[in-house]
Amino acid sequence: MSSLMRKAVLSDRDLPQKWYNIVSDFKNPPQPMYHPATGKPATPEQMAVLFPMEILKQEMSSERWIEIPDEVQDILKLYRPSPLQRAVALEKALETPAKIFYKWEGVSPAGSHKVNTAIPQAYYNKKEGTKRIATETGAGQWGSSLSLAGSLFGIDVKVYMVKISYEQKPYRRMLMETWGGKVVASPSMETKAGRDALAANPNSMGSLGLAISEAVEDAAGRDDTKYALGSVLNHVCLHQTIIGLETKKQLEMFDVEADVVIGCHGGGSNFAGLAFPFIGDKLTKGKKTQIIAVEPSSCPTLTRGTYAFDFGDVAGMTPIMKMYTLGHDFMPPGIHAGGLRYHGASPLVSQLLHEGLLEARSVDQLPSFEAAVQFARTEGFLPAPESSHAIRAAIDEALECKKTGQSKNIVFNLSGHGHFDLTSYEKYFKGELQDYPLPESDLRASLKGLPKI
Amino acid sequence: MSSLMRKAVLSDRDLPQKWYNIVSDFKNPPQPMYHPATGKPATPEQMAVLFPMEILKQEMSSERWIEIPDEVQDILKLYRPSPLQRAVALEKALETPAKIFYKWEGVSPAGSHKVNTAIPQAYYNKKEGTKRIATETGAGQWGSSLSLAGSLFGIDVKVYMVKISYEQKPYRRMLMETWGGKVVASPSMETKAGRDALAANPNSMGSLGLAISEAVEDAAGRDDTKYALGSVLNHVCLHQTIIGLETKKQLEMFDVEADVVIGCHGGGSNFAGLAFPFIGDKLTKGKKTQIIAVEPSSCPTLTRGTYAFDFGDVAGMTPIMKMYTLGHDFMPPGIHAGGLRYHGASPLVSQLLHEGLLEARSVDQLPSFEAAVQFARTEGFLPAPESSHAIRAAIDEALECKKTGQSKNIVFNLSGHGHFDLTSYEKYFKGELQDYPLPESDLRASLKGLPKI
Repeated sequence: MSSLMRKAVLSDRDLPQKWYNIVSDFKNPPQPMYHPATGKPATPEQMAVLFPMEILKQEMSSERWIEIPDEVQDILKLYRPSPLQRAVALEKALETPAKIFYKWEGVSPAGSHKVNTAIPQAYYNKKEGTKRIATETGAGQWGSSLSLAGSLFGIDVKVYMVKISYEQKPYRRMLMETWGGKVVASPSMETKAGRDALAANPNSMGSLGLAISEAVEDAAGRDDTKYALGSVLNHVCLHQTIIGLETKKQLEMFDVEADVVIGCHGGGSNFAGLAFPFIGDKLTKGKKTQIIAVEPSSCPTLTRGTYAFDFGDVAGMTPIMKMYTLGHDFMPPGIHAGGLRYHGASPLVSQLLHEGLLEARSVDQLPSFEAAVQFARTEGFLPAPESSHAIRAAIDEALECKKTGQSKNIVFNLSGHGHFDLTSYEKYFKGELQDYPLPESDLRASLKGLPKI
Repeated sequence: MSSLMRKAVLSDRDLPQKWYNIVSDFKNPPQPMYHPATGKPATPEQMAVLFPMEILKQEMSSERWIEIPDEVQDILKLYRPSPLQRAVALEKALETPAKIFYKWEGVSPAGSHKVNTAIPQAYYNKKEGTKRIATETGAGQWGSSLSLAGSLFGIDVKVYMVKISYEQKPYRRMLMETWGGKVVASPSMETKAGRDALAANPNSMGSLGLAISEAVEDAAGRDDTKYALGSVLNHVCLHQTIIGLETKKQLEMFDVEADVVIGCHGGGSNFAGLAFPFIGDKLTKGKKTQIIAVEPSSCPTLTRGTYAFDFGDVAGMTPIMKMYTLGHDFMPPGIHAGGLRYHGASPLVSQLLHEGLLEARSVDQLPSFEAAVQFARTEGFLPAPESSHAIRAAIDEALECKKTGQSKNIVFNLSGHGHFDLTSYEKYFKGELQDYPLPESDLRASLKGLPKI
């Protein structure tokens, strides 16, 4: 009989019943959000045109544990708890004394962790009478997760999809449409922001910032419609903590403790989801776990950005937040990890980095694809280009252990599958991908437009 | 606390350690395979040029239980046991008193049940010194599963992919290449069969039968190379019984017994995998479970075919088997469930149908897509077009329960995801798909070439 334990699985009964709110354990309270027009702290009333009240309460809460509603738990059980897998074949290929574990979020119907927050966001909207949600999507992970959640709760979902993705990733658009999502290429003729952009440049390929502007305008202009965001904000990070809470239980089943915890970092949500429960143990129990956020070298928000107040979008329509930022008009190169192409970062992750509770590291595009292929050829699953950044760091840590002889327990978040990213893999194999060195002068330039708070 | 049980999960420890060989419980022994050239029963020695000896032993075994080697179990644990899910949201949408359960095989790295047999086939080949395996693939599920298994065991895999699929499904090809598979469009210039076909018709789009001919020629002509098949044969059905064995344990966790067991049917492997352990209970314990194989109306092998000896391929190069067949030169219409476009059927499934232990049903393409969309919008997961045939039958059974008031337990195999089939969904939404009525005269014509045994 084979006694190898390759994964730890939890039953429906073991699904976490509460989200962990790391703000409750912060030594210093987080900075408030500021209104983009007045420059004063944004009030819940001002935000209520975009978000349901329960979401806003969570956004500003300092309660330690927040109940996951039964109806949300019922739907999360579709695919959660997700497996924690030990990468035995990858360990063997690396000849490392380290143990490598990955939390496998690609089992969700939309293929990534984004569903974890799409479901509660749709639930609270439904409960407060929202008939329709407008949102933006870049690579399509968030738009498809929200389309799915809308389908499950009977809410119409409108997705402004960055035009270049709309054209390059038709499968993601079709997936959203199969779940009933209404998808339009952004810039569109359906909003003033879109029409203005098209008037200025009829061939505009769009940007995430512009798509946000369209979705926000749509939601603000209709009584039946709210807006939803898939990363960055506190309530999104909160909903994702279910990842780390499950992982801690599953590491106990393997009878190990994490020495190193790794997540890729774009807006911050999958990283926060895995890492916050472990950082909580550092804050409250004095644990020494090493926590690493991994970002692309071509969009080095945490490693080369500035900790300052900035807008969440290019157009300056969102609230102003204190975060690591490259400046809201920083335009990242066209790397294939579309979900990591963001100028800012979660304010909570930013504060924890600033206070020394985690470290940040950047990796180039080619080494991250190399890691993804090594992973796929040993562990089987095809990683999303975003998640591959975490794999790269995990492999590097394991190779370091090989040098030093240490047998660390390395845990990373495999936040999504790459089934809709295969053209990127093909380009990698053909040698058509590249790295993007960023001169310091480019970075300084985009910081000039920071708002004054 | 939510007490809903939405899925039954088993741990690595619960992985079945033996495959169930239904032949051991047959009242009448299965018919032997006949050599295509001599018309006499094929000997293991004749088959050994194509298959490793251990596979041939399994093909002809009448042992009840066959040990799953530890090394195979170790790799199956990557994604197995797979979940058995209760379709609570679909039940609610249908307003049925029935309970619906689906075995979710899309969690495998290649996205379908095909991996369950690719791994042991690669293992036995590796053990017996095979350096390289040649195979064919239509829609690409089998080619990608074998490419994955080859990657895990260090065996080169060559895939002859039907040219029309090669061009229409580039993502499947890229997936195989990411795992290191060498993929060529069939007909190719690499075999005599391919060159002959191209000489006759330079624009040939290929067929599964021709691709089989190329792969068999490739394997027969090289000492380092064997051939592998992803369905139909006894050893393939054997490897798939792990599906039904797990399902039986998981139904116990739900505290129910299956009343109806449903699988889609092409060559027969996913159907056999789920159904054989339940049919075993009918044969040995007198259980009355209803067992339904669901095929496309446009390729109605089991419902309108003849139980006779026929070749497994179009070119007449494979052994001759007793099975339900539409005639080996039957050319099915271009439905999108490519994996169900096969003129024949597993000899074991055929015999069980002939002896009244299961029933067969056919469904049209449009109602199967309608079922798939209803499933995706309630249960979230996107089904493969093949699996959608099983969903259609499960929904029809549940709707019948609504009429009669019976609360049956309906179990079906969701054999794969549809991530690489989204263009079919798009065509369905655009109204570009159709059904294909088959006149009796068409069916009679293709039966004229049956070999005489």
